Amino acid sequence: MNRIVTLAQRPTGLVDQATTAVVEHAIPTCGPGEALIKVGMLSIDPTIRTWMNDAPGYLPPIQIGDVIRSSGAGVVVESQTDRYAVGDIVIGMTGWQDYVLATEENKFSVVPAGMGLDLATVMNVLGVTGLTAWFGMTDVGAISAGDVVVVSGAAGATGSAAGQIARARGASLVIGIAGGPEKCAQVVADYGFDYCLDYREPDLAKRIREVAPTGVDLYFDNVGGPVLDAVLSNIAMRGRIVLCGAIAQYNDPAAAAIYNHAMLIMRRASMTGFIILDYAARFLEAQMELAGLLLGGQLVHHEHIVDGLDNAPTALNLLFTGGNSGKTLVRVDGSVALS
Amino acid sequence: MNRIVTLAQRPTGLVDQATTAVVEHAIPTCGPGEALIKVGMLSIDPTIRTWMNDAPGYLPPIQIGDVIRSSGAGVVVESQTDRYAVGDIVIGMTGWQDYVLATEENKFSVVPAGMGLDLATVMNVLGVTGLTAWFGMTDVGAISAGDVVVVSGAAGATGSAAGQIARARGASLVIGIAGGPEKCAQVVADYGFDYCLDYREPDLAKRIREVAPTGVDLYFDNVGGPVLDAVLSNIAMRGRIVLCGAIAQYNDPAAAAIYNHAMLIMRRASMTGFIILDYAARFLEAQMELAGLLLGGQLVHHEHIVDGLDNAPTALNLLFTGGNSGKTLVRVDGSVALS
Repeated sequence: MNRIVTLAQRPTGLVDQATTAVVEHAIPTCGPGEALIKVGMLSIDPTIRTWMNDAPGYLPPIQIGDVIRSSGAGVVVESQTDRYAVGDIVIGMTGWQDYVLATEENKFSVVPAGMGLDLATVMNVLGVTGLTAWFGMTDVGAISAGDVVVVSGAAGATGSAAGQIARARGASLVIGIAGGPEKCAQVVADYGFDYCLDYREPDLAKRIREVAPTGVDLYFDNVGGPVLDAVLSNIAMRGRIVLCGAIAQYNDPAAAAIYNHAMLIMRRASMTGFIILDYAARFLEAQMELAGLLLGGQLVHHEHIVDGLDNAPTALNLLFTGGNSGKTLVRVDGSVALS
Repeated sequence: MNRIVTLAQRPTGLVDQATTAVVEHAIPTCGPGEALIKVGMLSIDPTIRTWMNDAPGYLPPIQIGDVIRSSGAGVVVESQTDRYAVGDIVIGMTGWQDYVLATEENKFSVVPAGMGLDLATVMNVLGVTGLTAWFGMTDVGAISAGDVVVVSGAAGATGSAAGQIARARGASLVIGIAGGPEKCAQVVADYGFDYCLDYREPDLAKRIREVAPTGVDLYFDNVGGPVLDAVLSNIAMRGRIVLCGAIAQYNDPAAAAIYNHAMLIMRRASMTGFIILDYAARFLEAQMELAGLLLGGQLVHHEHIVDGLDNAPTALNLLFTGGNSGKTLVRVDGSVALS
């Protein structure tokens, strides 16, 4: 049977018992041009929470009764297409379920074998997470040598990669923002940021000013809300703010308010949003540099693996409660692995 | 004597009796390399209100006891420099006073004689107001043919010019936002916008959606606050928001909140602030096109002239109470005029 985690009810805050349901269906039948994939691992991303809302977004909301949309990795167990061979490890939109069909509409990428990397690393650094950090920093943020860079969610998978990419591209100062002293210590010790500030500081704007007295040239924003406001008040002349996410408000629309947008005028600065899907045609370019950084030891990464498809909703909540560290993945089937 | 309007006390909302004081000093003495200017007309701009606050800005706050900083025009009455001849009409930072010295630090531009334009028109369309509209639309906003354009403060001097520049550059739809039915009617009838919406509409976002169902490609924002939020919720894919001012909050910091910045992510859109002073080296380029539009009848403009230096504070308030229409100027000395 195929276990499918569906959206039972739209959540208002964190996901709870009533949000999802597990239903069992027959394993889908593989038709001509299709392949059947046994799901091995799910990528747990904050954006999944936005798809649960009935609100306009970059993709349509998940409908009630539908499988929770998610990227993930799996192994091809049956194929009626030349595109995939049985045994291939593939990455794409698996959804929260045991089996998924690769179709003309839902294509997967085959992970090259023999890379010497484990699947979790590939899903983190060479997957959507690392790609988001890379395109946000280089393309949207136009990082250049000498920049003073601030990254929020710095202990998270995307943020920790973003800061290390900034460092590799010659940032003069890399400042993280994270939740609590433990995570802040990790951001400096593990990921090599120069400083890390606790976003719960009573006067975060002042703390940023102390460590970045010349202002912030590039801010990679994962969170929105008061943290974005604190950086806005410290933005440098012609500073750039890259909007990657707004995690503070995904569960709490009231946390969306920002008050300091007029600093963009005073400092001739800009704020630009992006969605990683737009860059699909350029993924390889990013993966080359990311793999290079990995092999050169310049891209420290951690994965936080939660076991069991049933625990996917709990794993999603970790992104918002701060209970995770590094990239959150759900292991659905441990036998799916890179050789 | 030289009457000088000084900052007596920082205002918290609108300027009132206690905000300014009029003091009299001797007419300044013109030294070598300097020229004495008799002030004829003041340009009343929302930014003056921001300079009265003790807050970081693109220029230092006006100090208590100092003359109110302002641009304006005057006639050279005495000169000890080859840069200005007696009788020249000049534009620059006059401040709110009867006389000012042109110095090495405070330079003025000489208005060419024989242009066939009156001083008020020059100060409006070829001055900071028209220049702000032009650089905001063309350079920051990268207007291109076919764009759906929204302009707030559309009955104002900058907004009305911005909409007409968009039209001249091939915008497919030009939508104004202004305060009240009378101004909205003027925006359509006088300035040729396709639509004008009242910002007090109970559901402005919905009204924008009705007139711009494909979304807003370019928004020229003068006001910030709820109007900016309403446009954010209608921003088109890769839309651009040009931040020219945030008039809603200059007198009321609580009006600064915006809630929809995450739409910039969903729509891969950007929001960029600018300050016209940065473009000084390119003013002539803009003035050529602006003069062309003026002469071709494509740039309708109005000036709202308030008489008397003493009334400058009242004139400034008009910008925020909606009591003005077109460019607000204060006539200090009616004999100063272009030939």
